[in-house]
Amino acid sequence: MAETSSSSSSRDKPWIFRTYAGHSSAAASNSLFRKNLEKGQTGLSVAFDLPTQTGYDADHILSRGEVGKVGVPIMHLGDMRTLLDGIPLDRMNTSLTINATAPWLLALYVAMADEQGVDRKLLSGTTQNDIIKEYLSRGTYVFPPAPSLQLTTDVVTWAYREVPKWNPTNVCSYHLQEAGATPVQEVAFALATAQELLDGVKQAGVVSAADFPELVGRISFFVNAGIRFLTEICKLRAFSELWDEICLDRYGVTDERYRRFRYGVQVNSLGLTESQPENNVYRILLEMLAVTLSKNARARAVQLPAWNEALGLPRAWDQQWSLRMQQILAFETDLLEFGDIFEGSAEMTRKSEQIKSEVRAELARVEAMGGAIAAIESGYMKQELVKSNSKRLQTIEAGEQTVVGVNAFTSSETSPLSGEAGGILTVPESIEFEAVEGLRSWRSKRDGAAVERALADLRTAAQTGANIMEPSIAAAKAGVTTGEWGETLREVFGQYRAPTGVTGFTLVIPAQEDEIAVLKAKVEAVSRELGETLKLLVGKPGLDGHSNGAEQVAVRARDCGMDVVYEGIRLTPQEIVESAKRERAHIIGLSILSGSHVPLVRDVMNQLRAAGLGDVPVVVGGIIPAEDILILKQCGVRTVYTPKDFSLNAIMGEIVELAAKRQPEAA
Amino acid sequence: MAETSSSSSSRDKPWIFRTYAGHSSAAASNSLFRKNLEKGQTGLSVAFDLPTQTGYDADHILSRGEVGKVGVPIMHLGDMRTLLDGIPLDRMNTSLTINATAPWLLALYVAMADEQGVDRKLLSGTTQNDIIKEYLSRGTYVFPPAPSLQLTTDVVTWAYREVPKWNPTNVCSYHLQEAGATPVQEVAFALATAQELLDGVKQAGVVSAADFPELVGRISFFVNAGIRFLTEICKLRAFSELWDEICLDRYGVTDERYRRFRYGVQVNSLGLTESQPENNVYRILLEMLAVTLSKNARARAVQLPAWNEALGLPRAWDQQWSLRMQQILAFETDLLEFGDIFEGSAEMTRKSEQIKSEVRAELARVEAMGGAIAAIESGYMKQELVKSNSKRLQTIEAGEQTVVGVNAFTSSETSPLSGEAGGILTVPESIEFEAVEGLRSWRSKRDGAAVERALADLRTAAQTGANIMEPSIAAAKAGVTTGEWGETLREVFGQYRAPTGVTGFTLVIPAQEDEIAVLKAKVEAVSRELGETLKLLVGKPGLDGHSNGAEQVAVRARDCGMDVVYEGIRLTPQEIVESAKRERAHIIGLSILSGSHVPLVRDVMNQLRAAGLGDVPVVVGGIIPAEDILILKQCGVRTVYTPKDFSLNAIMGEIVELAAKRQPEAA
Repeated sequence: MAETSSSSSSRDKPWIFRTYAGHSSAAASNSLFRKNLEKGQTGLSVAFDLPTQTGYDADHILSRGEVGKVGVPIMHLGDMRTLLDGIPLDRMNTSLTINATAPWLLALYVAMADEQGVDRKLLSGTTQNDIIKEYLSRGTYVFPPAPSLQLTTDVVTWAYREVPKWNPTNVCSYHLQEAGATPVQEVAFALATAQELLDGVKQAGVVSAADFPELVGRISFFVNAGIRFLTEICKLRAFSELWDEICLDRYGVTDERYRRFRYGVQVNSLGLTESQPENNVYRILLEMLAVTLSKNARARAVQLPAWNEALGLPRAWDQQWSLRMQQILAFETDLLEFGDIFEGSAEMTRKSEQIKSEVRAELARVEAMGGAIAAIESGYMKQELVKSNSKRLQTIEAGEQTVVGVNAFTSSETSPLSGEAGGILTVPESIEFEAVEGLRSWRSKRDGAAVERALADLRTAAQTGANIMEPSIAAAKAGVTTGEWGETLREVFGQYRAPTGVTGFTLVIPAQEDEIAVLKAKVEAVSRELGETLKLLVGKPGLDGHSNGAEQVAVRARDCGMDVVYEGIRLTPQEIVESAKRERAHIIGLSILSGSHVPLVRDVMNQLRAAGLGDVPVVVGGIIPAEDILILKQCGVRTVYTPKDFSLNAIMGEIVELAAKRQPEAA
Repeated sequence: MAETSSSSSSRDKPWIFRTYAGHSSAAASNSLFRKNLEKGQTGLSVAFDLPTQTGYDADHILSRGEVGKVGVPIMHLGDMRTLLDGIPLDRMNTSLTINATAPWLLALYVAMADEQGVDRKLLSGTTQNDIIKEYLSRGTYVFPPAPSLQLTTDVVTWAYREVPKWNPTNVCSYHLQEAGATPVQEVAFALATAQELLDGVKQAGVVSAADFPELVGRISFFVNAGIRFLTEICKLRAFSELWDEICLDRYGVTDERYRRFRYGVQVNSLGLTESQPENNVYRILLEMLAVTLSKNARARAVQLPAWNEALGLPRAWDQQWSLRMQQILAFETDLLEFGDIFEGSAEMTRKSEQIKSEVRAELARVEAMGGAIAAIESGYMKQELVKSNSKRLQTIEAGEQTVVGVNAFTSSETSPLSGEAGGILTVPESIEFEAVEGLRSWRSKRDGAAVERALADLRTAAQTGANIMEPSIAAAKAGVTTGEWGETLREVFGQYRAPTGVTGFTLVIPAQEDEIAVLKAKVEAVSRELGETLKLLVGKPGLDGHSNGAEQVAVRARDCGMDVVYEGIRLTPQEIVESAKRERAHIIGLSILSGSHVPLVRDVMNQLRAAGLGDVPVVVGGIIPAEDILILKQCGVRTVYTPKDFSLNAIMGEIVELAAKRQPEAA
């Protein structure tokens, strides 16, 4: 009997398999990387901690509680050496998830390659280096938009000649979806970002017209894939076709190779649930299909979260399990034996064309405003995202969109999956002390004068607008630290506070109107008793920039009639307490997702008491393990909300009650 | 901004969600069913134990060790009442996985409906009732092919009038794939089965020409979906189009409704792995996509195995987790908002057409032999399946087909998923005693004379060829037991032993030639020492009909030059020991997959010793938990193989060595 299966020789090459990984220290992360590579991972994706992402050393006040939490701390060339020890730079494909400090981390990487005698031309990998989406989501920006975009541009114009196999910028739609973007917003805002960047490069005139198409060809994308996976496939086909169109029509790139839509992907975290978290494995797999099923719009690199990402830091087994998902799809199934299975599909074409036409309209709107930077500075983009996310959450609250285990099918047997330790890793507090020790030792051994010279050169480049890359590489080699690099540029460029997007609109879906009306009445009643409008202070202490939760609480509280004070991300406990005093807040809500909730909340509570505000009720929201909830309550926190508390209306009701029952603190 | 998502009102209705479930007792299974329904399951799929499937009561010698193991024991109307207590028969869609005794189990179901006053016309569900595949795989046949097919036909011709919403037969390609069938074999053999059945109905003339299309319209299918999921989608599109073709061309069914390809599905178990079993969740999900992605060939009902099915009986949590997979695909994704996403796809059409043309050729071959029954009796179909499975296994052994965690990516962290009890349920031995007690009590309370009259009527129907259904329903109401019903028909129809398919061919893929040549030389050397060809007896004790393992060991041993005795499934320990004595076997291999390995192996070992054959080495293969391996070794078994031992060549090498070192048993 004849066989219908194709022979294995006709299979396509799989995408690059990665796991977004890194925590605690360079040494611990190196050992994790080696383990992952042994298990069949074919590329690295480095997660950096928040101090590294925002340009602080471990001993800075803002780094407290954040060192080694959401990624690896890399403060100098020595850390980079440890991180990549035993990993051949000329054969590894390394993705660095770094933005505001991207030139610096790339400089450390290149400095190490130089040191090892590896030809820069052989370095292959990616710096995320997309600052625009940091203002809209994620929040690890440092400088104002214009100089930030200049740094991005410096990397791009330097890289296409010096490290020609490197993707110097990965224009991110990923984080837009995490902030609530619809598929159309995701594609439109990312394309607007790419246009802003390329328009800038063109205007600056630092790249010749002959070289320009090659530079365009180095632009890659980093996308998201959500659970509505057929729409996501269509989104990616639309994205790919629109990029081709823009490269050809707007930039005149005639060589097809340079117009290719090349993208990596991390699938959606926003839709992962804390309730029945074992169900996340299905979501992750369906989302991976969105970026692999269609050959014409297939990802070049895929990294997947672990099922327990909504709970905390995944264990080695969890990461292995995620990797196996990619391997089974690539090696056990017949996917790579087929051409594009949607070519010719009327359904998929219809949907793709619909997305394309809506994206063109949105893109035109942003262009009419003056482009991506203008649409950031005016607050338009952020507000649109906050609106979409608000609508998404209301739809879930109202049960119009099903989330299994959350608003449907909630009864559950006990899961054996979490194990004794709750199924997550925790980073010991000692990591921070060790990092500070290591930093002091590094500083004590370097040539101080060489460091000063390197920093002076760096400052000059920043001031004159010369390309930042070579002075950064020189600084890396001289032993400069991440904090010093960051501080030097902060002094030149200044710092920035982005629009929060939470004001200027009201959006209540019909199914929510009644509940919100009831809450409004309650707020009014309590406000009458208080003699002034009930005022909620929403605070995000620490370096964490994941502001979705804070934004949505702020929006809903305002829709319920409260006075809301929300001053954005990255505030010190002291700044929050000062706000509470100045604004005479009746209740305080703190939001922290980086895992540093215990030290930060403890600090806020102590300072509140010291300021005589110990009786102001405080609630906390975040990714907070059960045992930490107890600790926070011992510190005096009234209620702790985690992702499983999906009903914002329920939270509002509790907040109003807490404010009404405000009692002088028991001593 | 316009939304691209369709409104929820335009969503298709999802398929029926089922879990193949049942174990221990009618009461335990009823409680499991109720739990599953509470969790959002929308239909039932009843697993019966092997005595029930093969027509024996719990107190029969062949039932020993098998009661309540792979399903629920149902011996009489009382058990059926307990099984479905509190479940409304007029609103439930119930699938009964039952074949040789299908008329009987359906009779019990209908008798209960009658008793409850539920209109037979409202009963909806399915009896598997496909005996042909039992001879090729699974092995729960009882009678010879011709009377068996007559019983199947009786159900079909009775049901379309009496229980018109019932699917009287679910023609199964499922078990063909489990036995190793290629997609083409799977479709061709199933279609040949359906044709054999319908040709028979037509020839018998018991159904009017006017009614015939309606009867054709009640034929449904039960298919499999393997990990090569795109090919599987094409297979199902091909299957659907070919069925339409056959209904129209062969049977002249002009009403399109009666030509619809309606199918249920359980996804592939053959490819689930014992190694890194957590990876099975991915396989199951990808396989589910094969039967749901294409709207034009979407399943009407889906039941999924649990991730740990390759290890033993799943726990309630495991079943819940499997159900959640279906719910997330149906309710969280956008699948049900799209039309057929492959309509118009050139790739998918090309593959479907290729499968269709190969199926037509295979179907013509079977027809030329005289149809399905003839192709069973001649051994053709079984041999083709054993060949395909042999090829499949050799491809895995040679590494030409990747199985993650088995022949690739084998290094693993410790999994937290299995929990303390090894992650499976075990059925306590007391279940069997309780079942026998219950049976005795049932017998003591019924009207003996009424039972005798009912059995006499049943016998008459069987002898005269009258439809078996009404006498079976009357027998059910009179209190007849499963064993009595089976025994009565066995006396009329006789029993049957199907061809094993293991002889008459040699199939060694090039990549395996060298290894097998080495093994051949070893067998020759040992045979020279023995003075006769090394002889392996392969035995399958108990009621379990899953013979893949036994067959493949037999085929490979023969290919390595051994004399092989394999007499098929369902032998008593006594028969196996008698064979060993008669054939002067040098080594014995026992295969058991039903979970009854401990009592059956203990029995074989005791009888071997009693027969003076205590020094013949015995190895055992099956789904055997770690703690039972120790027990089997204490009984004297030399080696125990489980599904993770995928290298048959390695097993052969060990068998030869055991035979060479055969030692008189230590006392």
